[in-house]
Amino acid sequence: MEWKQRLRIVLMRPRNALNIGAAARAMFNFGFDDLWLVDPYEPAFRRAKSAMGAARVLEQAHVTSDPAEALGEATLVVASSALQGRSTDIVQRELAPGGTVLRSHLEAGRAALLFGPEKTGLSREDLSFADWIVTIPTNPSCPSMNLGQAVAVCCYELAQQSRAVPELKTPATIPAEQRARILDVLLPILSDSGFLFDEGLEAQTQKLRRWVGRLRLAPRDGQLFLGILRQIRWRLDHPGEP
Amino acid sequence: MEWKQRLRIVLMRPRNALNIGAAARAMFNFGFDDLWLVDPYEPAFRRAKSAMGAARVLEQAHVTSDPAEALGEATLVVASSALQGRSTDIVQRELAPGGTVLRSHLEAGRAALLFGPEKTGLSREDLSFADWIVTIPTNPSCPSMNLGQAVAVCCYELAQQSRAVPELKTPATIPAEQRARILDVLLPILSDSGFLFDEGLEAQTQKLRRWVGRLRLAPRDGQLFLGILRQIRWRLDHPGEP
Repeated sequence: MEWKQRLRIVLMRPRNALNIGAAARAMFNFGFDDLWLVDPYEPAFRRAKSAMGAARVLEQAHVTSDPAEALGEATLVVASSALQGRSTDIVQRELAPGGTVLRSHLEAGRAALLFGPEKTGLSREDLSFADWIVTIPTNPSCPSMNLGQAVAVCCYELAQQSRAVPELKTPATIPAEQRARILDVLLPILSDSGFLFDEGLEAQTQKLRRWVGRLRLAPRDGQLFLGILRQIRWRLDHPGEP
Repeated sequence: MEWKQRLRIVLMRPRNALNIGAAARAMFNFGFDDLWLVDPYEPAFRRAKSAMGAARVLEQAHVTSDPAEALGEATLVVASSALQGRSTDIVQRELAPGGTVLRSHLEAGRAALLFGPEKTGLSREDLSFADWIVTIPTNPSCPSMNLGQAVAVCCYELAQQSRAVPELKTPATIPAEQRARILDVLLPILSDSGFLFDEGLEAQTQKLRRWVGRLRLAPRDGQLFLGILRQIRWRLDHPGEP
């Protein structure tokens, strides 16, 4: 498997057929082909599929409404965002140095690169899935790029990185879908335990998702964590049993 | 004057409003603002102008049907082309190393970066204006990029080059418009002299344009050349006079 096939491009809620088509074409131009769309605007996706160019990438594209499914087996999730004044505690890297890190990861591991919808970019909720944020160094007075062009620039920079890969051993971590599974068990436990409040539940969930991400759990440790949580779950459901 | 202001982006015969708008937006994203359009499809240009984003770049854009006017004072003309199997005797550089050369030139000189129409790319005639060709290293099975995305990738790569400029002294050469003036005097002389034939006149003209470009005439030498040609012209027009 070539390194390019280990990168998944994930478009969150794209609205515009031309942008979806442009993203697919840019991927094809630079040799990437694994495209996922989360909650695309349906008519736009249908129109994009019937457009010329990059047909193969679009035909094979997957659609889901579950971000965790789209991220799948990725053990590194990178979010493309101009941030535009929003503050975050997530690590940010510019595209060129970030590309080097991402490229190194792809040497052996899977990764996903997330792009937000045209008008608003990635939401706080979307960003909570990300290990770090990559920013394209644009003019401060016009930081936000067109979706198709942002995908093109990222694919170009990554493809450029194909020749010089620094030796960089990153320990194996659990993929995004297993992080999501941990969160699925953890959240109800915390809710039942009174750690979570209905008020601001969304923000608390995002905070916990980022926390699970930062743990960078090795596969064995992820299994262990899940085992612990399931045991706690059982105890909560059976308070009286021995 | 900042180096970015010395770069002119020239779109040859663009057909699509969205691509014109996308090119302008990418320029604005990366801090470039001098846009010229040669023979754009008029309705497309009008529609692009009324579209959102990058308004300033589009408002200030110039339109002409004369490539030499669009290239203007550029002393370096770089053509963006995937070539797609066409052979040429013009020097080709990949975008990253080519960007370094172009960036060095912009330290003190003016340059123009040419992009061809959407479906066909730059013609042989267009390429004859170029000092060299820059190619974006794409997938051989899908080399041709969308116009707006190609502009975005080139602007990104150039903006990236802003930090590390190698010392590189290039001798001053005459701008594109003076090369055109030389050709304007030279061609009729050669035609009257029997050097040019009506058959294949276009190809011969392109060959001579490339030749004048390769001379890399210093301003003084350009003046001298023009003086020589005008004298020959006079003699041809006044064969009997002393």
